Amino acid sequence: MSKSEATQFHTIEGEFRMQHGSLHSPTIAFETWGTLNFHKDNAVLLFTGLSPSAHAASSEADRTPGWWEPMIGEDKPVDISTYFVICINSLGSCFGSTGPSSVDPETGEPYRLSFPVLTIEDIARAGHAVIESLGIKKLHTVMGASMGGMTAVAYSVLFPDAVDSLVSISSSARPVTYSIALRSLQREMIRSDPAWNSGDYSGDGPAIGMRLARKLGMLTYRGSAELAQRFGLERVADAREKNDPFGIDFEVESYLESHARKFVGAFDANCYLYLSRAMDLFDIADHGGSFKNGLARVGAKRALVIGVETDMLFPITQQRELAEGLDDSERDVDFKALSSVQGHDAFLVDMDRFRPLLCDFFNCSMNQPGQLKSAS
Amino acid sequence: MSKSEATQFHTIEGEFRMQHGSLHSPTIAFETWGTLNFHKDNAVLLFTGLSPSAHAASSEADRTPGWWEPMIGEDKPVDISTYFVICINSLGSCFGSTGPSSVDPETGEPYRLSFPVLTIEDIARAGHAVIESLGIKKLHTVMGASMGGMTAVAYSVLFPDAVDSLVSISSSARPVTYSIALRSLQREMIRSDPAWNSGDYSGDGPAIGMRLARKLGMLTYRGSAELAQRFGLERVADAREKNDPFGIDFEVESYLESHARKFVGAFDANCYLYLSRAMDLFDIADHGGSFKNGLARVGAKRALVIGVETDMLFPITQQRELAEGLDDSERDVDFKALSSVQGHDAFLVDMDRFRPLLCDFFNCSMNQPGQLKSAS
Repeated sequence: MSKSEATQFHTIEGEFRMQHGSLHSPTIAFETWGTLNFHKDNAVLLFTGLSPSAHAASSEADRTPGWWEPMIGEDKPVDISTYFVICINSLGSCFGSTGPSSVDPETGEPYRLSFPVLTIEDIARAGHAVIESLGIKKLHTVMGASMGGMTAVAYSVLFPDAVDSLVSISSSARPVTYSIALRSLQREMIRSDPAWNSGDYSGDGPAIGMRLARKLGMLTYRGSAELAQRFGLERVADAREKNDPFGIDFEVESYLESHARKFVGAFDANCYLYLSRAMDLFDIADHGGSFKNGLARVGAKRALVIGVETDMLFPITQQRELAEGLDDSERDVDFKALSSVQGHDAFLVDMDRFRPLLCDFFNCSMNQPGQLKSAS
Repeated sequence: MSKSEATQFHTIEGEFRMQHGSLHSPTIAFETWGTLNFHKDNAVLLFTGLSPSAHAASSEADRTPGWWEPMIGEDKPVDISTYFVICINSLGSCFGSTGPSSVDPETGEPYRLSFPVLTIEDIARAGHAVIESLGIKKLHTVMGASMGGMTAVAYSVLFPDAVDSLVSISSSARPVTYSIALRSLQREMIRSDPAWNSGDYSGDGPAIGMRLARKLGMLTYRGSAELAQRFGLERVADAREKNDPFGIDFEVESYLESHARKFVGAFDANCYLYLSRAMDLFDIADHGGSFKNGLARVGAKRALVIGVETDMLFPITQQRELAEGLDDSERDVDFKALSSVQGHDAFLVDMDRFRPLLCDFFNCSMNQPGQLKSAS
């Protein structure tokens, strides 16, 4: 059985230049699963969405389930008996990598808003430093979902010779206007909370703003049809006792409240702001002058683009646009449009649809239908 | 030319019983256009969405354009040479009708949160008191869009003998789960603003919360495709000068900000909360025990249901559900699904699509294509 350690750390020595500033010796946290083979050609680099840590799957060193537990492991679609998987905690996040909540070595204080404006390209470059530190010259695959998909696309453009295949899930090479507006509003909720205090807070910080932002996030991650199926117009049993005309009355309100409360304290508000804005700022047209020219720079010889028809944040039109932009005579591109009702978050929950696609891409041996079903 | 007065007021004498309490002698504000004919059979009652006043169109007494100016007037789809149009400011609102910001005669203080929980049925009953005061026994048509459509449906069920025709636009006979969740979040934004102070504020009150709620409102009133067409990824020219990493950078952020600022101070926060919750609570199944039985009580012999395919708040599936529920052997029902990109707000802006439908319904003489085009 392949060995896996829990979180590891790589320090990028010296000045790390970003698009809008620089950091002194930032640290990047990551986890790995499986073993790098002799030819070092079985590495799969996974970038995450906005809020997850590098703990994508359990291992001997950390047996708690990861955020993509059904996808990574032995006898799973990304089979760690075959592949060496590296998951990166994004630069700017708060799970071990340097971000706005980290201490600036030059001042001894947290960076807070003195952290440089963050871009998806910065996150990709920081991830590449980890890959170089592991002695990997060329990845089998760079992949990611949501913000992680944007980062995988950026990585493929910035390091075209270091990528054999690209997998983008519920993501895009530029944002849609509507998603920019939604994220802007989420950031404003956080910044409007007096406890944010222009980024200078201690403890949980702007708990009310984070709770509101998380609720709006959930409403954009999930679809209308799914909420209707799960909650309908059901009422909370004890709603009438609370004597508050605007208190929680419907089940759907209770659901959002319980999930939002879990998020507060689990993610740093300033990190959230920086990562959220990074998605707005990503535009592949910045590389080569146009969307088409940008994607032409992608080095991968093979690409898989998966999208979900009910995704509001990264609409299916964007996934098609990405697949078509990648499709040239040099590259083998596969585009899959899934009809999941779970919207943007389907890649985390609709395992019946997602697992077979990744199993197929990674030539996994998990071919018994029963195994697929039991994972859902 | 028919004469029209600006806002008029009707006081409902004595105790006005609501579903969850009562008010002492509430006042209902309304405006009228055109002249009630001898047989009193040309009256069209119009209920509004959450935020408009009764000023649906200009008149001699008030020449400022109304919120549905292209639709109501001489040589317009609802032609006031033919019809006597009454628009009601909803009970619970803040434009002349009694609502949470009105002074409770028993205490001399504003009602604020002592106002009874408001329902769509209460708004319909208060509107009916105005109709009775005008000596009208049977309306030619009761109509409304958004919350106003819900109120028109409620009116048709509560007063089946008083309605000949029903027009519901971008509305429904019950809310969808997703809209309840969105409205709940908007209310939480307002209630989370310290300036709300449990409803006990003076002046503009919770300006920050209202601004946030309005922005989310706009994102649910308009569609993703429309925002993409209008703003794309365009940047604000002077964004870089502001030295705020999370300040307004994209045109779409600037657009939302300018509209939200206009809303603050123009609508009372407590009224917003009550009217918003009323939409969540409306369910035609409360009348007769089921959705089908509730709609069977609608008295109108003719119904027009109009919906927009990009509407997120009142999805087109709901409009179809309403039309099918109304369709029985006794009633002539017409259902129109429009492909406007403007989402829920299309009835306010997509006049090229909406005007011909209402012109047709009201047998208007505005049949020159040139006139229709010029209104858009």
